[in-house]
Amino acid sequence: MKSGKKIPSREKEYAAFAPYDESSADILSIKKQVLDRIRPGPDERRRLEEMRSLLIEYVRDAALHLGETDVMPLAVGSAARSTWLRGNHDIDIFISFPETLSKEEMGTRGYAVAAEVAKRADSFEDRHSEHPYLHVVKDGFEVDLVPCFRIADPSAIRSAVDRTPFHCRFVKENIKGREDDVLLLKQFMKGAGVYGSEVRNSGFSGYLSELLVIYYGSFDNVVNAAAQWKPGIVIDIVGHAAASFDDPLVMIDPTDPKRNVAAAVSLDKFAAMADHARSFARRPSDSFFFGKTCPPLSDAEIVSLLRERGTHFLAVCFGSPQKADDTLYPQLFKTERSIREILRINEFQVLNTLSYGDDAACIVWVELFSGVLPPVRLKEGPPVWVHPNGDAFREKYASRADTYALFIENGHYMAEIPRPYRTAKELIAAKTGTEIALGKHVREVLAAGFDIFENDEICRIRSEGFRSALREKIFRHLS
Amino acid sequence: MKSGKKIPSREKEYAAFAPYDESSADILSIKKQVLDRIRPGPDERRRLEEMRSLLIEYVRDAALHLGETDVMPLAVGSAARSTWLRGNHDIDIFISFPETLSKEEMGTRGYAVAAEVAKRADSFEDRHSEHPYLHVVKDGFEVDLVPCFRIADPSAIRSAVDRTPFHCRFVKENIKGREDDVLLLKQFMKGAGVYGSEVRNSGFSGYLSELLVIYYGSFDNVVNAAAQWKPGIVIDIVGHAAASFDDPLVMIDPTDPKRNVAAAVSLDKFAAMADHARSFARRPSDSFFFGKTCPPLSDAEIVSLLRERGTHFLAVCFGSPQKADDTLYPQLFKTERSIREILRINEFQVLNTLSYGDDAACIVWVELFSGVLPPVRLKEGPPVWVHPNGDAFREKYASRADTYALFIENGHYMAEIPRPYRTAKELIAAKTGTEIALGKHVREVLAAGFDIFENDEICRIRSEGFRSALREKIFRHLS
Repeated sequence: MKSGKKIPSREKEYAAFAPYDESSADILSIKKQVLDRIRPGPDERRRLEEMRSLLIEYVRDAALHLGETDVMPLAVGSAARSTWLRGNHDIDIFISFPETLSKEEMGTRGYAVAAEVAKRADSFEDRHSEHPYLHVVKDGFEVDLVPCFRIADPSAIRSAVDRTPFHCRFVKENIKGREDDVLLLKQFMKGAGVYGSEVRNSGFSGYLSELLVIYYGSFDNVVNAAAQWKPGIVIDIVGHAAASFDDPLVMIDPTDPKRNVAAAVSLDKFAAMADHARSFARRPSDSFFFGKTCPPLSDAEIVSLLRERGTHFLAVCFGSPQKADDTLYPQLFKTERSIREILRINEFQVLNTLSYGDDAACIVWVELFSGVLPPVRLKEGPPVWVHPNGDAFREKYASRADTYALFIENGHYMAEIPRPYRTAKELIAAKTGTEIALGKHVREVLAAGFDIFENDEICRIRSEGFRSALREKIFRHLS
Repeated sequence: MKSGKKIPSREKEYAAFAPYDESSADILSIKKQVLDRIRPGPDERRRLEEMRSLLIEYVRDAALHLGETDVMPLAVGSAARSTWLRGNHDIDIFISFPETLSKEEMGTRGYAVAAEVAKRADSFEDRHSEHPYLHVVKDGFEVDLVPCFRIADPSAIRSAVDRTPFHCRFVKENIKGREDDVLLLKQFMKGAGVYGSEVRNSGFSGYLSELLVIYYGSFDNVVNAAAQWKPGIVIDIVGHAAASFDDPLVMIDPTDPKRNVAAAVSLDKFAAMADHARSFARRPSDSFFFGKTCPPLSDAEIVSLLRERGTHFLAVCFGSPQKADDTLYPQLFKTERSIREILRINEFQVLNTLSYGDDAACIVWVELFSGVLPPVRLKEGPPVWVHPNGDAFREKYASRADTYALFIENGHYMAEIPRPYRTAKELIAAKTGTEIALGKHVREVLAAGFDIFENDEICRIRSEGFRSALREKIFRHLS
């Protein structure tokens, strides 16, 4: 294994940082306390292992029943490598087919096997990433049954899920004896709010946290290194990188030289991890492992927040397209960015924005300095000597009776004209469905109608998920 | 004479512009009508010439009386070259001494001669540019009596005023027969609001307008050329430029190869001249020669403007340092720019600003979207990985009980904190005399105290000059 790229640093900048001593009594005691809370007990371990064996048996039975003679079930995921956090009852079972099959055949036949297994579960639902798979619940365990190809060479994978067995094998081979470090790191990332690589989170995946432990050697080493991270960290454990990346953190996949395992990590989650690690190193405490809970804001809290902040709340509410978060959130974020930009262009001062969506409703919330602006607005035209644009601008506003003023500033024509939308509500209402950028599914639900609530009308939004997210947004504090 | 630099142009841009026909009946009739209003009549001409002769005689008498044997009076200025506009009773008499004298001697002895002349005037006052001079009033004429050196070579002048006799001679030698063109151009520039090279105006001087007529050949040619001006015009009538300039308009002084006669012309006055010329060429009319009058705003008008515009007016009022406009206005503009910048930094949205000063009072007026902002303000800190700055920012706001939120955005620490000044009035009151940039004289009068008036309190400002300037500002329109 090669050493990762060292962080370029000026001595002065880091003079203030001293790595913590991993063998201090404090640290040992904190880690022990945390592990006592997060490490699965012997009972949980046994139950999970039994369930895993049972499911593998079910897959074999199903294959037999359907006449599939070359199907191999594989247990992957954290449950398969003893790096799951207590109470996390997710099991991933891959149903692998020989790579001689076509993608369609593999998909259809794999789904058939999964469906056969699902008959023996308590409940099931269809899910979809690159291919359809089945999510089933059995005795309280959440199980994904995923058809895949059984590939010899990881560089020749045929669908995204085919990588997973290779990941599982690499971790299993290299993590031995450091499972507790992975548990600690995952929990630490949860405390930092950076765990989870879904679009909504844009943080660190379980696999990435395992690779960090493998590379740096221990939980403590990861934290002491992260405390000094700057964007541009490149880690290439097996030294086989075959592509370069612009991401703040690059972890070359040990099973695929062209893939960055940390591609989903946003700059802000990267920075939040660095900040969290740095703060922990300064004043270690078990509080860094456990985030604050965010109960929904009550009506009274919303009203009192409005009074204290003196700002204007506005929420665009519409139906849910009932898609997976990873499909829905990119679309919500797009709408949120677009609303922010349209407000900015129209001179409304935006303090905060938030997107929230679940199976019941979608909400884009914005906090403004003011929801209303003066009726007069300054419009910048072309330079006086750029024609025909200059002439056209001048003629247009010279001939309008409602032009307040027409003049020259910094060589440009300028006009004071009536503001087309005096209130943010009118503006957003008019632009939703026209200029505001919308993803496919959000567009569809918006076409069915939307509400705009302002200030204490926000209390009409009953969604507890939204009210929790709003609390988290408004009261966000670094630990 | 050389041809001026041609304007770089793309054909498309100018496709829309066609120079007007200077021999059309319309144009001839407009020019005749305008000249009938602005050309001094025979009576005025005679009276002015008599006064000029009388003053020259007075200077000779005074020199004789004081035993000055080598003093020569010179009539300069528009009165001396028949390019003055009707009713403009300004006469410039220069009192020239041989260049063998020291600057101090010339100044003292010249001032003594001027003072002797002033005894025979109706009133007089001391004025000051590079050297002291006297401004006297005699029979309704405003006369400047300016001591200067009598220099042989214009490249060897010893004070700024020594140039004037050379300017006068150059114009006299070249303007013959085109005096009416100069009158038309000066009046046209007044109509455009670009005539006058004082700091407050930053427009075209009389000398510059004469050189433009000399270079382009006629009023019509100047207008048709100006209609196509872009910044970067360089005119060098005698082809002797010995310096380069960044100004939008460069007119190399025919009497000084290193001087730009148009240095005072701001980009906006340059553009306004181009715009005015272009509009005149499109739809010629005598209205282009006569600006609108700007009577002072009444109290009722101020109140109704506030209602219609829905904005917030704020005026900082302080005493006058009683300095010449060219001393006072640069200082007022500095304060105005600084106030605008401080408001912007503090997130107040500024629509307009205006400076006004005369011998009675100074006023800096601003028009804001709102005079009050929410109590919460977003403060951007350093990137998370830049230390010790990042650590310091984080510690500071993490430890303050009044921090609303502390988080990471675009890799930077961000804090929501209490806004130090919720109202523009508090902000300006606190920063006046500290962060707001002040010139020497404005600093002195501000130290003696200032008032801040808001909205209809503006009516307490009785200054008619300010109220006229405010009308001009708010209702500015291109003709």
